[in-house]
Amino acid sequence: MAAVPNIKAVIEYDGTDFCGFQRQPSAPTIQGELERALRELFCEPAVKVIGAGRTDAGVHAIGQVVSFTAPEAFPIDRISPALNGLLPASIRAKGAEEVPAQFHARYSAKARTYVYAVLNRAVPSALLARYAWHLTQPLDIGAMREAAGGLVGAKDFVSFGIPERAGGSTVRQVFDLRIARRRDAVLFKIRANAFLRGMARAIVGALVEVGRGKRRPGEVAEMLAARDRRAAGVSAPPQGLYLTRVEY
Amino acid sequence: MAAVPNIKAVIEYDGTDFCGFQRQPSAPTIQGELERALRELFCEPAVKVIGAGRTDAGVHAIGQVVSFTAPEAFPIDRISPALNGLLPASIRAKGAEEVPAQFHARYSAKARTYVYAVLNRAVPSALLARYAWHLTQPLDIGAMREAAGGLVGAKDFVSFGIPERAGGSTVRQVFDLRIARRRDAVLFKIRANAFLRGMARAIVGALVEVGRGKRRPGEVAEMLAARDRRAAGVSAPPQGLYLTRVEY
Repeated sequence: MAAVPNIKAVIEYDGTDFCGFQRQPSAPTIQGELERALRELFCEPAVKVIGAGRTDAGVHAIGQVVSFTAPEAFPIDRISPALNGLLPASIRAKGAEEVPAQFHARYSAKARTYVYAVLNRAVPSALLARYAWHLTQPLDIGAMREAAGGLVGAKDFVSFGIPERAGGSTVRQVFDLRIARRRDAVLFKIRANAFLRGMARAIVGALVEVGRGKRRPGEVAEMLAARDRRAAGVSAPPQGLYLTRVEY
Repeated sequence: MAAVPNIKAVIEYDGTDFCGFQRQPSAPTIQGELERALRELFCEPAVKVIGAGRTDAGVHAIGQVVSFTAPEAFPIDRISPALNGLLPASIRAKGAEEVPAQFHARYSAKARTYVYAVLNRAVPSALLARYAWHLTQPLDIGAMREAAGGLVGAKDFVSFGIPERAGGSTVRQVFDLRIARRRDAVLFKIRANAFLRGMARAIVGALVEVGRGKRRPGEVAEMLAARDRRAAGVSAPPQGLYLTRVEY
């Protein structure tokens, strides 16, 4: 018997109307929609989709990566277009390819990049309400960058998130944390080997408190050193967060 | 008795979940939402909102202008923030000011600008599904610009739209029609004294047929000359259209 083809697909979604990535028995999720579409496409009663990142409700993805197995006879180049015919418009497959059997969207990933978008101006935006965190008070980019420096490296991020498995390691390696202003937007780009649950939003929330002048830049490193979830303060809301890239 | 203050407000909205601008008895519309919010804000049983442009279902606005009268005692600078507290997140007031009594959002307008966004690439986008027309075939910008030249000026646009009042004039003056490529997007910017119902989308639909090579550039002027609504062909879908600016 030939090996069952293992497929890697890149997925984009607008997370607003979903209860996060992970399958739930009676709520719309990205994994649930993908598995439903693949069951229909492959005429198989059970298809399991593995995602590189378990994004929360309201969080978006431009470059989520998923893996799943396909029936041997199915033409690989038809998976992406056919899937898009079965998915809601708010989820799109951007490409699919066959990968070695040992490839696992989650365990094989070497790095994930999240971008967080803040709309930083007095006037609100209706068109960006689902896609950015609106903050009217001007943010101090220099102070936030100084604070961000204390988060780069291999560190225990227990103050900033929860491991997927209870008792799992809370050490994660942040490779890069960049903050840039683009017109009315302030963008936070965080690249790490992996993220704890809630970590990206907790980091942005803490940095924004620095940007608003409510905390000193050095306090962010102190939050980290405290190793206490209560030290991190308020998380940024989900609608500004995007999983943009997964590297293997 | 002092004159009742006449207010001009700039409004942004995501038109996806509304049945257009114009009030309808039992469907959510932009005018309906604004009038409901103003009734509540002013504690008045009837507030009439006049809009500069009657956008269709699914069409967005970044710079729609509305006018309405306010109770004499109401502080003008609180109208916009208070209104945003009563409106859904998909409609935002971006500013309000008192204007002379004769100001009328629709009749006083000297020019309206609409922008139409096409996502022109092979790969679909979930995040832009509500905000652009996705066309995979590359568009010929030069051919579309040549065709667009035939639409600039004061002309009878009866082939491209319907007047608000039956029997009304169908002559409109297009001041400017620009087409530009920005990365994966092709943007059409049309500035005119006023637009017939459906005119912006019919023009974009005709230009796209030229861009795809289905029609010669000269055929667009021929559609105009035909003075027949059936000559214009297929309209562009609503989700790519934005009312960006109204000039007085």
